[in-house]
Amino acid sequence: MEGFGVHTSMWTMNWDRAGAERTIPAAAAYDMDFIEIALLNAPIVDTAHTRDLLKQHDMRAVASLGLPEENWPSRNPEGAIAHLKEAIEVAAAMGCEALSGVTYGGIGERTGQPPTMAEYDNVARALSAAAAHARDAGILFGIEPVNRYESHLINTTAQAKWMIEKVGSDNIFIHLDTYHMNIEEKGVGNGIIQAGDLLRYIHLSESDRGTPGCGTCDWDEIHATLAAIGFKGGLAMESFINMPPELASGLAVWRPVAPSFEEVMDNGLPFLRGKARQYGLI
Amino acid sequence: MEGFGVHTSMWTMNWDRAGAERTIPAAAAYDMDFIEIALLNAPIVDTAHTRDLLKQHDMRAVASLGLPEENWPSRNPEGAIAHLKEAIEVAAAMGCEALSGVTYGGIGERTGQPPTMAEYDNVARALSAAAAHARDAGILFGIEPVNRYESHLINTTAQAKWMIEKVGSDNIFIHLDTYHMNIEEKGVGNGIIQAGDLLRYIHLSESDRGTPGCGTCDWDEIHATLAAIGFKGGLAMESFINMPPELASGLAVWRPVAPSFEEVMDNGLPFLRGKARQYGLI
Amino acid sequence: MEGFGVHTSMWTMNWDRAGAERTIPAAAAYDMDFIEIALLNAPIVDTAHTRDLLKQHDMRAVASLGLPEENWPSRNPEGAIAHLKEAIEVAAAMGCEALSGVTYGGIGERTGQPPTMAEYDNVARALSAAAAHARDAGILFGIEPVNRYESHLINTTAQAKWMIEKVGSDNIFIHLDTYHMNIEEKGVGNGIIQAGDLLRYIHLSESDRGTPGCGTCDWDEIHATLAAIGFKGGLAMESFINMPPELASGLAVWRPVAPSFEEVMDNGLPFLRGKARQYGLI
Amino acid sequence: MEGFGVHTSMWTMNWDRAGAERTIPAAAAYDMDFIEIALLNAPIVDTAHTRDLLKQHDMRAVASLGLPEENWPSRNPEGAIAHLKEAIEVAAAMGCEALSGVTYGGIGERTGQPPTMAEYDNVARALSAAAAHARDAGILFGIEPVNRYESHLINTTAQAKWMIEKVGSDNIFIHLDTYHMNIEEKGVGNGIIQAGDLLRYIHLSESDRGTPGCGTCDWDEIHATLAAIGFKGGLAMESFINMPPELASGLAVWRPVAPSFEEVMDNGLPFLRGKARQYGLI
Repeated sequence: MEGFGVHTSMWTMNWDRAGAERTIPAAAAYDMDFIEIALLNAPIVDTAHTRDLLKQHDMRAVASLGLPEENWPSRNPEGAIAHLKEAIEVAAAMGCEALSGVTYGGIGERTGQPPTMAEYDNVARALSAAAAHARDAGILFGIEPVNRYESHLINTTAQAKWMIEKVGSDNIFIHLDTYHMNIEEKGVGNGIIQAGDLLRYIHLSESDRGTPGCGTCDWDEIHATLAAIGFKGGLAMESFINMPPELASGLAVWRPVAPSFEEVMDNGLPFLRGKARQYGLI
Repeated sequence: MEGFGVHTSMWTMNWDRAGAERTIPAAAAYDMDFIEIALLNAPIVDTAHTRDLLKQHDMRAVASLGLPEENWPSRNPEGAIAHLKEAIEVAAAMGCEALSGVTYGGIGERTGQPPTMAEYDNVARALSAAAAHARDAGILFGIEPVNRYESHLINTTAQAKWMIEKVGSDNIFIHLDTYHMNIEEKGVGNGIIQAGDLLRYIHLSESDRGTPGCGTCDWDEIHATLAAIGFKGGLAMESFINMPPELASGLAVWRPVAPSFEEVMDNGLPFLRGKARQYGLI
Repeated sequence: MEGFGVHTSMWTMNWDRAGAERTIPAAAAYDMDFIEIALLNAPIVDTAHTRDLLKQHDMRAVASLGLPEENWPSRNPEGAIAHLKEAIEVAAAMGCEALSGVTYGGIGERTGQPPTMAEYDNVARALSAAAAHARDAGILFGIEPVNRYESHLINTTAQAKWMIEKVGSDNIFIHLDTYHMNIEEKGVGNGIIQAGDLLRYIHLSESDRGTPGCGTCDWDEIHATLAAIGFKGGLAMESFINMPPELASGLAVWRPVAPSFEEVMDNGLPFLRGKARQYGLI
Repeated sequence: MEGFGVHTSMWTMNWDRAGAERTIPAAAAYDMDFIEIALLNAPIVDTAHTRDLLKQHDMRAVASLGLPEENWPSRNPEGAIAHLKEAIEVAAAMGCEALSGVTYGGIGERTGQPPTMAEYDNVARALSAAAAHARDAGILFGIEPVNRYESHLINTTAQAKWMIEKVGSDNIFIHLDTYHMNIEEKGVGNGIIQAGDLLRYIHLSESDRGTPGCGTCDWDEIHATLAAIGFKGGLAMESFINMPPELASGLAVWRPVAPSFEEVMDNGLPFLRGKARQYGLI
């Protein structure tokens, strides 16, 4: 996990053979170092097919997910463990370097109450087992704090660090996302500084999930702070310009977040790459 | 509605006699020009008591609300109209200059689907009746776009303007909130610029609802843009440091958003007032 | 003066026939709406030649200058008037829409003392005569505040407004420059807001005179404030990547301010145009 | 050199007994950790008197200077060495922890030409001798890049690092200043990141040398980047609200940079301290 990549939601949210065939060459054409595959339905993945395509295009990959309600770790840690183990195996079989994302819960998981210690205990149990399984599978395992509306469990770097200490695993990294940090952190840089060496991966996502450079994120502060902590992990552009209706609900995407796919790729992508170069990150 | 004020959530979310007695002198002690009263339970308000207290402390007021699910305009416009009319009458009886807020729906209202034209038609019908009633009562009537997670209906200035045109009333103003704009607008200034003369009221709320000046909002851009459009309306500081559990859910407040009430009032308030002075707004 | 243009220093600082022939087609190839011609040596200009080239490429133009020491208005208002009149005539003959820049003094003019009222009286006398001559010639006349090191006379919008009031002419506009405002104004937006309708032209120049988007200027605040005041004038990109040694001294350019001409034109220019579009300015 | 301090120009630029007596108790009353003494006239200093006052108020100190034209290192390295040695001795005798500032030249030193290698060789020779003398005297020795107008020699962190490597001393630190970085660096954070462990001291000075928090400096990016590199050195507020005419020229201060001393101390100082706390720097 290093270099500059892109979340595959730009091309598909359905990682079947057709999705993989559409996405991997397209990402390669934009000269991406890696792709992030949304592993929302692990059983449908043809892992050998993806692995071959990745090799063919000399492309690296990371997998990410959020858990379905029946397997939310806070309520059903055993279900979550089984779900995460399968995802880890599929990710490893595709040749992914890590499984990350909202691995501690659901996207949109909220009880309407502040989190309880019982919920956190369940989450820790699931993460502990998953991290051990990831180690055995030879991949890294990450957790991504998301904003208060998408989860009541882990919204900030400080909470992610606390959870990693609670789990006690040295195989869990922090995966940040500028969109969420823009809402949750006391200064977007603070999320990065507090994560420090635990930070291995970051979503570069604009404040409205639209074209990077056209929102309220302070991209200079973000890149400066990444450079200043000596960040060496993956920089992944994320925009929700192509969001299927069934996923849009948890993410609350009700309108097009950018004028077009082309605007994101032709304006937003060069903007982010330029900032990464300005601060010596790529 | 002009000058610098504060949302009364800093002291109470329960506008009974005790709440009013605790809040109005406290706001006066901080030299506020007005207060914003959360009118979540109109029947419990002793309007004469509030009016007297306001006069006694030479304090102006604005009322705001979000609607309960049974009276969401998108589903039950008649219920909404009755609810809004009562709130307008109570607001006017207290001596408030306006009723505003999420007057077009519930805080946390989401269907899980993009908004439909049928929903918007219902909303327009309720707003039309409410705006007419507000005119008769001699107060102003506003709508506040909120972020995608708190409503699927009106998230941006552009949508608020479109709704006002749809209603066709000249008695509806736009009420913005920096916290929501920080998530929704393509540049926080754009929300202000597009609102233009329709903007009569703004919540100055930090990106995490905590201490103003300690988050990711670009306060210079906000105040500069307000000054540049010639804004003359009310500037209302809002922080959710004191949020009762029953309200915290719709607002997704799971942790203290600031170290203390004192930090918000002693650091955040002078910061915001200083910016308003720097740009000639007060 | 409207649309998006560029200072011709990107190609030449010597407006002879060769300079004009190199520059005008090049600017047209970058789809500029206008060019700003540095009129540092009016007698060498072949005005008919420039006018023909401008027409041929459907290009509009503005002229700008700073005065040589022997004709500094603060010391030699009669010399300044003669110099400015000639420049106005040459600018008009080329078909320029305005003469602007440091028309009130020299670039690098400093006495080592705060400005005196005698100096300002002399400046006002020169500007009054020049503005009248510009009116007769059918072009506009502007003054550009510059930073404290490049002049001790007019560093801020407030000082420029005061000077315009002192002159009493209704034919003088304010020409701002983001590089100078970044040093002098209490919030870059404040320079724009205070100028208001007097603002007809702005240099979009990065904090180090290098590639726009790679410095410390707050481009969102700048463009938002321009949009919010209803700015309709010319937006002119300026970078000092190509600065001849004889001019570099007054401007204190000692090192290359950007990696290359191409970086400024291929990265900085699209960045600025994108921001202008985001805020509806072009 | 750690903690939060202030440049003594807030009270005096003349470090005689009266200046010291006015300044040290005043700085202590604002709860400063250290003061920065402008050592512009070393022979007039009563070192024992200052040392006693510092001890009495439990105040630490740093000394800084710029060299007079007759002793500019670029032209007269022997004169510079003698000047710097005397200043080092006086600084050490007062109990200062370091001598820093424009120790490599004059404030306002410019030849009108780009710097030459002969100038840099002379500068390196002077700095080498001074750094060795500082080591013998038991104090640190720093160099402060300043903007292009105040020196043509060292404007950026990159140039300061290059000079330190050229000198080959391990006793020279980099002293940055946000005012200068705001003009010179490609992102204010970049100056801090590139300095890294060499950075031991920083002037927190607003973009117009006025009230911190009221200009164009991006204080979040500055503090975030300082925190992210693990900065442990001194944070020194600097404003030129009280600037004697004889010094104002080199610094090009022609007008009051803030409304009053009180505004700087009562608004700017709490603002900067608040930011330093927000990012865990004090």
